[in-house]
Amino acid sequence: MEFKKIVELIRKNKFVEAKHLLQNENPADIAQLLEELDSETMLIAFRILSKDLAAEVFSYMNKEDIHYIIEAINDDELRIIMDRIFLDDTIDILEELPSNVVSRVLKNTKEGKRKQINSFLNYPENSAGSIMTIEYMSLKKKMTVEEAISHIKKNGIDKETIDTCYIIDKDRKLQGVLSIRQLILNDDYTQIEDIMKSNVIYCNTLEDQEDVADKFKKYDFTAMPVVDNEKRLVGIITIDDIVDIIEQENTEDIQKMAAMEPSEEEYLETGVFKLAKNRIIWLLILMISATFTGAIIQKYDDVLQSVVILAAFIPMLMDTGGNAGSQSSTLIIRGLALGQIEMGDVLKVIWKEIRVSLIVGVILSIVNFFRIYYLQKVGLAISATVSITLFFTIVIAKVVGCVLPIVAKKLKLDPAIMASPLITTIVDALSLIIYFGVATLLLGI
Amino acid sequence: MEFKKIVELIRKNKFVEAKHLLQNENPADIAQLLEELDSETMLIAFRILSKDLAAEVFSYMNKEDIHYIIEAINDDELRIIMDRIFLDDTIDILEELPSNVVSRVLKNTKEGKRKQINSFLNYPENSAGSIMTIEYMSLKKKMTVEEAISHIKKNGIDKETIDTCYIIDKDRKLQGVLSIRQLILNDDYTQIEDIMKSNVIYCNTLEDQEDVADKFKKYDFTAMPVVDNEKRLVGIITIDDIVDIIEQENTEDIQKMAAMEPSEEEYLETGVFKLAKNRIIWLLILMISATFTGAIIQKYDDVLQSVVILAAFIPMLMDTGGNAGSQSSTLIIRGLALGQIEMGDVLKVIWKEIRVSLIVGVILSIVNFFRIYYLQKVGLAISATVSITLFFTIVIAKVVGCVLPIVAKKLKLDPAIMASPLITTIVDALSLIIYFGVATLLLGI
Repeated sequence: MEFKKIVELIRKNKFVEAKHLLQNENPADIAQLLEELDSETMLIAFRILSKDLAAEVFSYMNKEDIHYIIEAINDDELRIIMDRIFLDDTIDILEELPSNVVSRVLKNTKEGKRKQINSFLNYPENSAGSIMTIEYMSLKKKMTVEEAISHIKKNGIDKETIDTCYIIDKDRKLQGVLSIRQLILNDDYTQIEDIMKSNVIYCNTLEDQEDVADKFKKYDFTAMPVVDNEKRLVGIITIDDIVDIIEQENTEDIQKMAAMEPSEEEYLETGVFKLAKNRIIWLLILMISATFTGAIIQKYDDVLQSVVILAAFIPMLMDTGGNAGSQSSTLIIRGLALGQIEMGDVLKVIWKEIRVSLIVGVILSIVNFFRIYYLQKVGLAISATVSITLFFTIVIAKVVGCVLPIVAKKLKLDPAIMASPLITTIVDALSLIIYFGVATLLLGI
Repeated sequence: MEFKKIVELIRKNKFVEAKHLLQNENPADIAQLLEELDSETMLIAFRILSKDLAAEVFSYMNKEDIHYIIEAINDDELRIIMDRIFLDDTIDILEELPSNVVSRVLKNTKEGKRKQINSFLNYPENSAGSIMTIEYMSLKKKMTVEEAISHIKKNGIDKETIDTCYIIDKDRKLQGVLSIRQLILNDDYTQIEDIMKSNVIYCNTLEDQEDVADKFKKYDFTAMPVVDNEKRLVGIITIDDIVDIIEQENTEDIQKMAAMEPSEEEYLETGVFKLAKNRIIWLLILMISATFTGAIIQKYDDVLQSVVILAAFIPMLMDTGGNAGSQSSTLIIRGLALGQIEMGDVLKVIWKEIRVSLIVGVILSIVNFFRIYYLQKVGLAISATVSITLFFTIVIAKVVGCVLPIVAKKLKLDPAIMASPLITTIVDALSLIIYFGVATLLLGI
């Protein structure tokens, strides 16, 4: 894209040429160009776009710039854009804007669309209803292929996708689904009824978006119909929104796994206080849980007092235990999230982790023993104490790490909270108990 | 789906009825049903499917069952299935099978397709070439809409998608792209040339699949053309494969963040030794790095000896530091992966993390001070030492946590390795140095 050239042309007020160059570009690229301009130039560039293109570009822009543009343009301009933008994109935009801006947008939207927007804004957050669009193509089963195609020609222009068409009866009940491919590949006089697929896979308006995304992944769909409780077709969800949801759900899982409140906002756009708030709750919980670990050490302070070098290996034991445990919990959490591990696999998983932990534990303990006995010249009894503790710590860490996410799932909690931080805290305590236990035994304190 | 009924019918040898019921189901559901059957019943159920459906179901099955079926069916059956299965699915299947099975499959594939399969298998792993399919719909720019539609009617049956068509010249060079929607919505006599989009966004056969996925996300595509170095169209990539790649890349990132070698294999399908191998390298590296932490404690063993209670707070300080640091690194790693944070944002990020860490640090230190001074009745000097160390540990952890992933990216390493485990090890050492430093100062040891 000739970014520089276009900016240059705008700065020189050569709008016709700039418009001409912009017209050939992809809306996503134009949105990116606009975001890099200063506000004033951005507004000029936005205004020289054809209205259709402007509406498309709008749906790719970030919330600050959209806000700025809406504030800057007049009601007529706003009305034209709102007329052309797809309903699901409108909803996405409105959900991000402050309420006074939302009311101005709604005021400049045609009544029919306004009603639809309002009903969308009332669907629960993260439900299928809140992400669907109503710009789908519907057909009747008594149509012939020829009639259907001419119906599409007449009504298809403002639909988000016509690649899949939906067959509904007079009560809007969903009866079948038909790809445009089937339509094209069949003879003109074939009846829709005879070629449509009547076993339609759909979702309900109130279904969670994560479940909807799972259905898309399972069936390799590019669009899915959304029905209400009476199985009436109310909208469709398209794959581009699902891709965003998949990334968003992954981000949330990753955040939970690092002991944070999940947030949909981008890092750079989140305020400092919000960021601090998202992090502090878990830090407090985990800090206070670490009291137990402290109490264990305090209980054995006589052991430490007489063999103070034991303290030097505490960090290594704790870190290795934490790492070994979070490796297991991470794999299990991810496997549960992707549906690759089911609740019924729990025994299989534990058995696998026990075997893995035996291999890992033996190797690490041997390496550790040689390292501290031969290289650091630590005494035999202490070297043995540390290595034996290391072995048991790894085995326990891996079993705890694989069991807790599954237990969480069973308790209908999110398995992602059973990740590194919490596992580490639990394994720390267990590891210290073993450490001092073995020390008391071997060192005869 | 009437799973039980179908299984019942198969068990009673009522194949015609079972076939009839299966015919209406979605291939993904049938594959799932088959996986739950014992091998023998599975084979019977697979054989009663119509050949087209069998080919589709095949591409949804897991590698063990595919292997089993290929071994069990005869060459004629295999040939018929290989004829009907889409090329990109064939590649996916072949890449998972042992080489003797691959050669039998190739022997039963038509020569033209076999050549294509061989050339696909030669594209580098994770390249655009290795995931594309060649079953795309191509048109010529001098065609009219009517000619194009009749061309599609004749040739569209074995294309993976006809929703987007590609316009190529006689040398197969990519000239434009046209959606079926444009085709349907335009008059019969319009020339393709006049309605196609000539500014096509494409990818190269050797491009990394992660970059291709980023383009899909940016442009909301459902298919993208793949060209060779001479810009000749060689295939297309469809969104269903991209969704799988996004999940796979996320899994790999999450595994790296938990200090494991990334693996594409599903947990339950990975052998114990492979799992142990993926985990042990990082555990060894991190265990040996923890030597530094041990050395610091050993250096200050006189301090510990005289105030042994100091040891009791080491786990809490280390864990909180590790957690605070991995919160920051996680957000930055994810932001970098999603392209929401760029290299140019480094100062903005550090400034933000410093402010967040001040808020979090102050609150946690105060809570901690009250907890150990008033509740645990620890002396004032020690309570102050612990709380001051906690504050600095959090600030340092957050700065280290946000800087290291960016440094890794700058050094062309994967930022995901700068996650919790490595950050924890580094922060542990820094935290202990501060702890003993403050202790020496305040306690006058």
